[in-house]
Amino acid sequence: MRISELSAESQVPIPTIKYYLREGLLPQGEQTSATRAVYGEAHVRRLRLIRALIEVGRLPLAAIRKIVAAVEDESLPVHDMLGTAQYALSPGADPDPDAEAWREARKRASALMSELGWRVTEKAPTLDELAQTILSLERLGMPADAEALRPYALAARELVTGEELPRVPFDGPRDAAVEHLVIGTVLYGRAFDALRRLAHESESGRLLGETCRGGLPGEPG
Amino acid sequence: MRISELSAESQVPIPTIKYYLREGLLPQGEQTSATRAVYGEAHVRRLRLIRALIEVGRLPLAAIRKIVAAVEDESLPVHDMLGTAQYALSPGADPDPDAEAWREARKRASALMSELGWRVTEKAPTLDELAQTILSLERLGMPADAEALRPYALAARELVTGEELPRVPFDGPRDAAVEHLVIGTVLYGRAFDALRRLAHESESGRLLGETCRGGLPGEPG
Repeated sequence: MRISELSAESQVPIPTIKYYLREGLLPQGEQTSATRAVYGEAHVRRLRLIRALIEVGRLPLAAIRKIVAAVEDESLPVHDMLGTAQYALSPGADPDPDAEAWREARKRASALMSELGWRVTEKAPTLDELAQTILSLERLGMPADAEALRPYALAARELVTGEELPRVPFDGPRDAAVEHLVIGTVLYGRAFDALRRLAHESESGRLLGETCRGGLPGEPG
Repeated sequence: MRISELSAESQVPIPTIKYYLREGLLPQGEQTSATRAVYGEAHVRRLRLIRALIEVGRLPLAAIRKIVAAVEDESLPVHDMLGTAQYALSPGADPDPDAEAWREARKRASALMSELGWRVTEKAPTLDELAQTILSLERLGMPADAEALRPYALAARELVTGEELPRVPFDGPRDAAVEHLVIGTVLYGRAFDALRRLAHESESGRLLGETCRGGLPGEPG
C-alpha cells in the first residue's frame, strides 16, 4: 500500500508517519520509484505499537526508541524484549534522603521476591518502586512487612498467570506481543484500581450499614 | 502545647501551621492570652491528615478543604465522609468525543456493579473512570466485558474486605479514619501495581523458559 493508504489504515496522519520514518521508528517502505515507496502489514503493526506506547503508555520518545530497537533486534530473546518495554513503563523511584532506610527497604523488597519464589532481576526499577512504597507505608505507620504485602502479591500473580499472560501473543510478530503487554499492563492496572475503589465504597457501606449517597434512605445496608 | 511544640510534634513548620489556621483547615487553638494559644492531640491528628492528603493523595487545596469540611460535619455519616475523600482521589474521566460509545460503556460499568451485587452510587466518578478504561480497552481490541473484568473485581473485593477495611479505625476520631483510608487507597494501590509488574517479569520468564537479565545463563527457567 502507498503512504496515503497506510495513513488511512492506521489512522495516523501522513506527516506523523513521515516523522516516524525520519526518526527510524518505522522501517522504510519498499522503494518502487525515486519518489514512491510501498508499505505492508508490518508497517501497520509498528504504527499500532508506537501509538499504544504514546497514548496508553504515555512514554517519551527516548523510551519508545529503546523499545523499537529491542523489537527490531531479533537476536534479543522475547523475554528481554518484553522486559525492555515493562521497565520503560516503571516510573522508578526518586532517591530517598535517608540512604540507610532506603537500602533496608530495598533489601526487604528483594527478600519478598525470594520468599514468593519470584525470579526478577535485582536491578529491576519496579523493585525500587516497591521499596519506596514500603518506606512510605512504614513512615506513615501502616504495615508493609511480608505478611501485609503477601495477599497483594498472590492476587497479582493470580491475575497475571490466569488472565494476562495467556492473552499475550507470544508466538506472533514481536511488535504485537509488546503492544499487547503495554496495553494490558496499563489498562488492566487502571481497571483494577477503579474496581478496588468501587469495592471500598460498596463494602464500607455494607460494613457501616449505611445507604450510599444517592441511594434510597432507609434501604437495608 | 504551644505552636512551637505542635510544630515539633507534627514535623510541620510553624509558618505552614499558621497558614492552615488562616485557611480554616486546622481549628484555632484555645486562646490563653491575647497572643498565645494552646493546641492538643486533635490538632496533631488534623495535621497528620492534611499532610497525608497533600503528600500521599497529592490533592489540591480545594479538595482538601472539602474533605476537612466533611470531617468536621459530625452530622455527616462516616460512610459519606469517607466517600468524600475517596471521590476526591478519583481522577475522574475526560469527556469522550464519541458520546454514544461513552454512554454505552458507562452503562456497562453500572451493569457490572449490579451483576457483582456492589452498591455504589450512580454518580461515582470512579464509575466514569471504569467506563473510560472499558472504552479504551475495546478500542484497542482487548476484552473488557464482564467476563474479562470479573476476576479483577473479585480480587479487588477480596483485598478490600480481607486486608484494607479491617485496618480502618472506624470507631476512632474521624480524622484518623479518613487519613487511614487515603493512605491505604493510594499506597497499597501503588504496592499492588509494582507487584503486578514484578509478577509479569517473573511469570513470563517462567513461561518462556528464559533466564532473567542479570540471571545466570543456563539457570533453569
